[in-house]
Amino acid sequence: MNRPFNFSAGPAAMPQEVLEQAASEMLDWHGSGMGVMEMSHRGQEFTSIYTQAESDLRELLAVPANFKILFMQGGGLAENAIVPLNLSRAGKADFVVTGSWSKKSLKEAARYCSTQLIASNEASRHTELPDPASWEFSQGASYVHVCTNETIDGVEFQTLPDLKALGCDAPLVIDFSSHVASRPVDWSRVGLAFGGAQKNLGPAGLTLVVVREDLLGHALGVCPSAFDYKTVADNNSMYNTPPTYSIYMAGLTFLWLKRQQEGSLSGIAAMAQRNLAKATLLYQAIDNSTLYRNKVNKDCRSRMNVPFFLRDESRNEAFLAGAKAAGLLQLKGHKSVGGMRASIYNAMPLAGVQALVDYMQAFEQKQV
Amino acid sequence: MNRPFNFSAGPAAMPQEVLEQAASEMLDWHGSGMGVMEMSHRGQEFTSIYTQAESDLRELLAVPANFKILFMQGGGLAENAIVPLNLSRAGKADFVVTGSWSKKSLKEAARYCSTQLIASNEASRHTELPDPASWEFSQGASYVHVCTNETIDGVEFQTLPDLKALGCDAPLVIDFSSHVASRPVDWSRVGLAFGGAQKNLGPAGLTLVVVREDLLGHALGVCPSAFDYKTVADNNSMYNTPPTYSIYMAGLTFLWLKRQQEGSLSGIAAMAQRNLAKATLLYQAIDNSTLYRNKVNKDCRSRMNVPFFLRDESRNEAFLAGAKAAGLLQLKGHKSVGGMRASIYNAMPLAGVQALVDYMQAFEQKQV
Repeated sequence: MNRPFNFSAGPAAMPQEVLEQAASEMLDWHGSGMGVMEMSHRGQEFTSIYTQAESDLRELLAVPANFKILFMQGGGLAENAIVPLNLSRAGKADFVVTGSWSKKSLKEAARYCSTQLIASNEASRHTELPDPASWEFSQGASYVHVCTNETIDGVEFQTLPDLKALGCDAPLVIDFSSHVASRPVDWSRVGLAFGGAQKNLGPAGLTLVVVREDLLGHALGVCPSAFDYKTVADNNSMYNTPPTYSIYMAGLTFLWLKRQQEGSLSGIAAMAQRNLAKATLLYQAIDNSTLYRNKVNKDCRSRMNVPFFLRDESRNEAFLAGAKAAGLLQLKGHKSVGGMRASIYNAMPLAGVQALVDYMQAFEQKQV
Repeated sequence: MNRPFNFSAGPAAMPQEVLEQAASEMLDWHGSGMGVMEMSHRGQEFTSIYTQAESDLRELLAVPANFKILFMQGGGLAENAIVPLNLSRAGKADFVVTGSWSKKSLKEAARYCSTQLIASNEASRHTELPDPASWEFSQGASYVHVCTNETIDGVEFQTLPDLKALGCDAPLVIDFSSHVASRPVDWSRVGLAFGGAQKNLGPAGLTLVVVREDLLGHALGVCPSAFDYKTVADNNSMYNTPPTYSIYMAGLTFLWLKRQQEGSLSGIAAMAQRNLAKATLLYQAIDNSTLYRNKVNKDCRSRMNVPFFLRDESRNEAFLAGAKAAGLLQLKGHKSVGGMRASIYNAMPLAGVQALVDYMQAFEQKQV
């Protein structure tokens, strides 16, 4: 089956092999006589799916043993509340604002604790990243929040800030929704990471939380039990009925990730190399053109979300219509910034980016 | 394809036609070149799926125009917190305890308001329902919580209490997780209804909330934005990324429900008649046997969840093994009560209940 290339920012394209397997198992998983949607979450069939998914993810992301992997619900926006409900201890929390998502996180956390904006790239309209050496940490903050890839603005931290080296003892909380599993994570620098699944992991409705054990057990009294990390961890993410089918789809995606290879690299290392190659191809095409431009500083351009603008914006609709006709879907930029955006998550092959670049060049030539 | 009959209490069996359609559309929904999981929730394709699902559900359940239909996440356990976060105004709330689920709701609500236990069937071990005429409503309660079908205990309200007629002005909140869409709802008696989807509507990870408009807009300051009913309503359930695939599956289930007929009845009325026939068949078989028994009073036996016990409990494992061999799955009772439980939701055909009854009778005869 020859499918179009889908550049949606999320919910986003899934690996075709994953969808094919899911379709083939829809009515009967492994001879159980049940589809995965129809299984009790406490039965042995689903328990085996869950255990395998958790273990594969731990292996893929090299999550250390002192971190818990939680499968939750509500997405990144819910986590904007759930993180301070669990970690803030109603004290202070520091925020680095680098785009639309971190701004929302800061605003929501103010319901539960005193929030401090310690760095911002607002002056550059979210096209640069504030140097961690310049961050002015609060005394006694319970955590420091950073969105490590801004989906709308296309800004990505290429390395995680090392708070300890900067003299800050607070745990780092990262919102890695839109680049999770696209590159390795240096867990020695992280206290908690969260992300909606719908970009790189699976269907919308599943949220991944990876949290260091010592941060559990401090939820505020007003934290709903279903969102208390300790309760979730103590119940292997089955305090409430988990989104079983989404966990299954994520599990199939993890198996797909484990099969990926680039030269001698496999798994996340292979994805990181492939994602770099995809992003490089697309940014070079943009930079080498006279029609397209990307406004983000080269040192912090996202490998996942590539916003770009036509210098002649009256051609936007023609660009999108031509793209769709060429089998290149969902390229319209976020309404808050306009223009175009190509999200090139793990499931997007290099051939998809090449097809986009070919189309962009042909479209540009027609304009001359 | 001839599948076993699956009596899981939830996540539960789905209609085979629904699963078949989902499998066939997994890689390409209606020629869009995308599977439903891969669609932006803001694109025209998913918007049309969402709008259709909402409208079909409104028609099926005859939801009046002054009620909002919300598609949320977190299931019934999360709603145990989300309801008081939205409705309690940090005042008082009344609870009727009729089994395991209403007990949990009462406990969780105490985080947000003063809770009052106004009636309980604890003395009967959850085998009767306290007569609404005996409920001692609090003065000025912000709502009255009732679980209208207790999944574990198998106790169901056959009619909703009419609080106004009983002299109570507070809105009635019903947890209808495990019998939603199995029978009509008298909305004139309801302020808010909530339910996890994983019994009668679709996959786990989707929560349905139906709420009267005048109850919106009173959330506590500590209510996460993603769970503020007014925010969710104002954004057509797309404040955060909704569980898109689960909504699609629920939508296919709604279309299936609309196609169901029993004589001149269709939709929910047809389901109600079929569910009554199924439950009657099973309870009669239990009552007419010497091996099996159900402990619930006849006037409040659930049409959805039928717990039953073998008088000789040493035969439990043999019963379950034989059932599985006969293609009758997931009949083990909840760990908190033991015994057996047959959940016979909408997707269970009469033939499935007949097969169970046949097996039970054959098993009983072997014991003699």
